[in-house]
Amino acid sequence: MTGTKDRILAAGAELFRQGGYAGTGVKQIVETAGAPFGSLYHFFPGGKEQLGEEVVRSSGMQYIALFDLFITPETTDLIDCIETFFAAGVTSLLETDYVEGCPIATVALEVATTNETLRQATADVFTAWIDAGTERLEKFGLPPASARTLTITLITSLEGAFVLARSMRSTEPMAVAGTAVVDVARRLLAELG
Amino acid sequence: MTGTKDRILAAGAELFRQGGYAGTGVKQIVETAGAPFGSLYHFFPGGKEQLGEEVVRSSGMQYIALFDLFITPETTDLIDCIETFFAAGVTSLLETDYVEGCPIATVALEVATTNETLRQATADVFTAWIDAGTERLEKFGLPPASARTLTITLITSLEGAFVLARSMRSTEPMAVAGTAVVDVARRLLAELG
Repeated sequence: MTGTKDRILAAGAELFRQGGYAGTGVKQIVETAGAPFGSLYHFFPGGKEQLGEEVVRSSGMQYIALFDLFITPETTDLIDCIETFFAAGVTSLLETDYVEGCPIATVALEVATTNETLRQATADVFTAWIDAGTERLEKFGLPPASARTLTITLITSLEGAFVLARSMRSTEPMAVAGTAVVDVARRLLAELG
Repeated sequence: MTGTKDRILAAGAELFRQGGYAGTGVKQIVETAGAPFGSLYHFFPGGKEQLGEEVVRSSGMQYIALFDLFITPETTDLIDCIETFFAAGVTSLLETDYVEGCPIATVALEVATTNETLRQATADVFTAWIDAGTERLEKFGLPPASARTLTITLITSLEGAFVLARSMRSTEPMAVAGTAVVDVARRLLAELG
């Protein structure tokens, strides 16, 4: 039965990412997951809100793996690393016909002032991303405060780029965002002396 | 009767911004506007989608005025201008208890792959913002391509900062975004020689 719960979480993540929390019905999630309707309340007795919270937390946490995809033990050049990251963002937009985006941003904007439980879940994910990124960027010799600044720049730039790129069906905002993060990284590296 | 239509558009803009498109009912919009229910289909025979499209276009276009608020004929220093803009973003988050955000970003993410009419409306607004910002930033001596890059950086940074700041109830992402845009502006100004 664990497989069923995972399928429901995966279906919820995909549908929330594409249509948002409010626009996605629990029936649609269960059907997409190929699960019996009763299993929803078996695994998520709190209903849609509990499902939403678990989807945000699990899909958000999975994305921490992205840092390790781009910052490997072999990665030595911070600028290369950032350029590769945003080039992958461009490729992902093109390959998915602008479907791919942040797994939690749509929900985050929807619930920021309307659902405290879900807002907290999105905040916890962003905090985890910032902490994970900060820790990994310190390996390039940046002090913690600079690594944190660069991580927040990277995440906000990526989020904003997804908003414009998916709306405009253009890779330009993602490419521009990448160069902005590079500019910040160069300044922070220069400050190291 | 024009007053009623404007009230419906204003109520729609506020409710979409806070709860998104799918999460906002037309009944709720009409009630918030203090308008009779029949007036919705009088002014918007296409129903919720037509209302949504007009809300996106009208509220989005109103925000072009923000450029003229921060780039006046007296504004001579580009860096000051950017710092003032993002400081105002921080103040706005605090003063509205993190309610204030982009008028169209929530809808843009919701509809990017689910509603082509609304997606096109959000894309037209972002395009208008980029064109308006580019034109205004050229006055600082930037060539058109640099002015466009800086405008896209400013808008993507602002959008991403709203996502994180409203979710985390923190002004830090907005402040960091401002410094990133300043870094890009300094690089573009330096390239002028």
